[in-house]
Amino acid sequence: MHNLSQTFHFPVQIYYEDTDFSGVVYHPNFLKYFERAREHVIGAARLKQLWEQEQLGFAVYKSEMTCQEGVEFSDIIDVRTRFFIESQYRTVWHQEIYRPNATKPAVIAKIEMVCMNSKRHLTAMPDTLMAELTQQF
Amino acid sequence: MHNLSQTFHFPVQIYYEDTDFSGVVYHPNFLKYFERAREHVIGAARLKQLWEQEQLGFAVYKSEMTCQEGVEFSDIIDVRTRFFIESQYRTVWHQEIYRPNATKPAVIAKIEMVCMNSKRHLTAMPDTLMAELTQQF
Amino acid sequence: MHNLSQTFHFPVQIYYEDTDFSGVVYHPNFLKYFERAREHVIGAARLKQLWEQEQLGFAVYKSEMTCQEGVEFSDIIDVRTRFFIESQYRTVWHQEIYRPNATKPAVIAKIEMVCMNSKRHLTAMPDTLMAELTQQF
Amino acid sequence: MHNLSQTFHFPVQIYYEDTDFSGVVYHPNFLKYFERAREHVIGAARLKQLWEQEQLGFAVYKSEMTCQEGVEFSDIIDVRTRFFIESQYRTVWHQEIYRPNATKPAVIAKIEMVCMNSKRHLTAMPDTLMAELTQQF
Repeated sequence: MHNLSQTFHFPVQIYYEDTDFSGVVYHPNFLKYFERAREHVIGAARLKQLWEQEQLGFAVYKSEMTCQEGVEFSDIIDVRTRFFIESQYRTVWHQEIYRPNATKPAVIAKIEMVCMNSKRHLTAMPDTLMAELTQQF
Repeated sequence: MHNLSQTFHFPVQIYYEDTDFSGVVYHPNFLKYFERAREHVIGAARLKQLWEQEQLGFAVYKSEMTCQEGVEFSDIIDVRTRFFIESQYRTVWHQEIYRPNATKPAVIAKIEMVCMNSKRHLTAMPDTLMAELTQQF
Repeated sequence: MHNLSQTFHFPVQIYYEDTDFSGVVYHPNFLKYFERAREHVIGAARLKQLWEQEQLGFAVYKSEMTCQEGVEFSDIIDVRTRFFIESQYRTVWHQEIYRPNATKPAVIAKIEMVCMNSKRHLTAMPDTLMAELTQQF
Repeated sequence: MHNLSQTFHFPVQIYYEDTDFSGVVYHPNFLKYFERAREHVIGAARLKQLWEQEQLGFAVYKSEMTCQEGVEFSDIIDVRTRFFIESQYRTVWHQEIYRPNATKPAVIAKIEMVCMNSKRHLTAMPDTLMAELTQQF
């Protein structure tokens, strides 16, 4: 059994841009909010440094998403994120979206990310990054 | 075993808008291309009529996606789509993305869609629509 | 000369999704950030109420935008917004984007919005809304 | 007076992704369609080669857009493009969007693009590219 991190909370407000004419959020946008939340956990500045100085980045290998409820314009949703480190190459993220005052998630996702170099080859995460991520447990 | 439809092919050109600074397509956009392909299979005009005249639409309930290879600016990808009708409420779509001249898919997805009314309640697909979809086998 | 409102500040973090393979923000996204900022000035809940209860909304009629500098991944930009009420139908918004620690704007825009009903006919803003907007001066 | 190119026609189908909950295309997306049309005029492969081999690309410096009519889901719009070469650094594009069977444009735009290197410095277009563009007149 892997060690799961603490739960991170990340608020996202739903704007016109996020919805489609059926009146709710257009479903691919959920993957965007999950991605933003992960960028906050790792840290945007750290991601920029990894890319610029070590030509390393993260790519989504697998995503499984269940949309249980529509999300609406003007909602401020709570994106909840936990993750574990499966190996030096791979992290697995359990993420959920809660509408305001909701007790059950509107969207649930499990996302596998791999570390890659700029040639898009699977590459081990640097020890320094592994240590930083492990501190989140 | 369910009867799978024929395979539909739908070309998508990759523009600046589809990529991110790491140089490849930003992964949520794959779900957009899969959605466009499904809209072509059902027919945009038919979808518009369903919504405007019968307040019926489709929502993605589950999506599973595996990204095996990066897709690049200026690629014209082939989105391949097959589906089956699981019930009067639910269709299941097997979709893949092939880069030019590729023999293996860059992205593979299985997507479950449900039929809903404008109150977002699960609703049976009209018989007429069921008949139209069944003709695709 | 029209009375200009106070200046509103609205922070936006730049994520992978905002950039393209050239390494900077893809220019149509600037219009998204300006739109989000206007939604905050008017209030998302107020906009939702206008749409649901009075079938009123705002549409962009004209936009003029000058992009003077590229904006990068991980920037937290400051979207600055001032506006004036030209008539019961039309508001004019002066908006700028500043990169962190910048003294000059990276992007400057002037945007004209009109009030419309759900049939997309030009419609006067309700007096209540006019009063709320005027309080921002 | 500058020499205007021939008019290029580029069809774009409007999908769920393009609309917002007010029922029409979300206005920043018009700038995307104009960008796609320009990419087709210059040629995506040519743009990719310019970027990869000469670290050259185009950036939008100014955009003026007037949205005269809403565009709807399932429309197949005609994006009409003409341009002229103002200098070795700058091209000016007159672009319009026509809804099906329309006699007047729904959206009109004038867009100024500049040629830049990967350090985002203004750079002259190569003579070869100037010659290719001039052939479009």
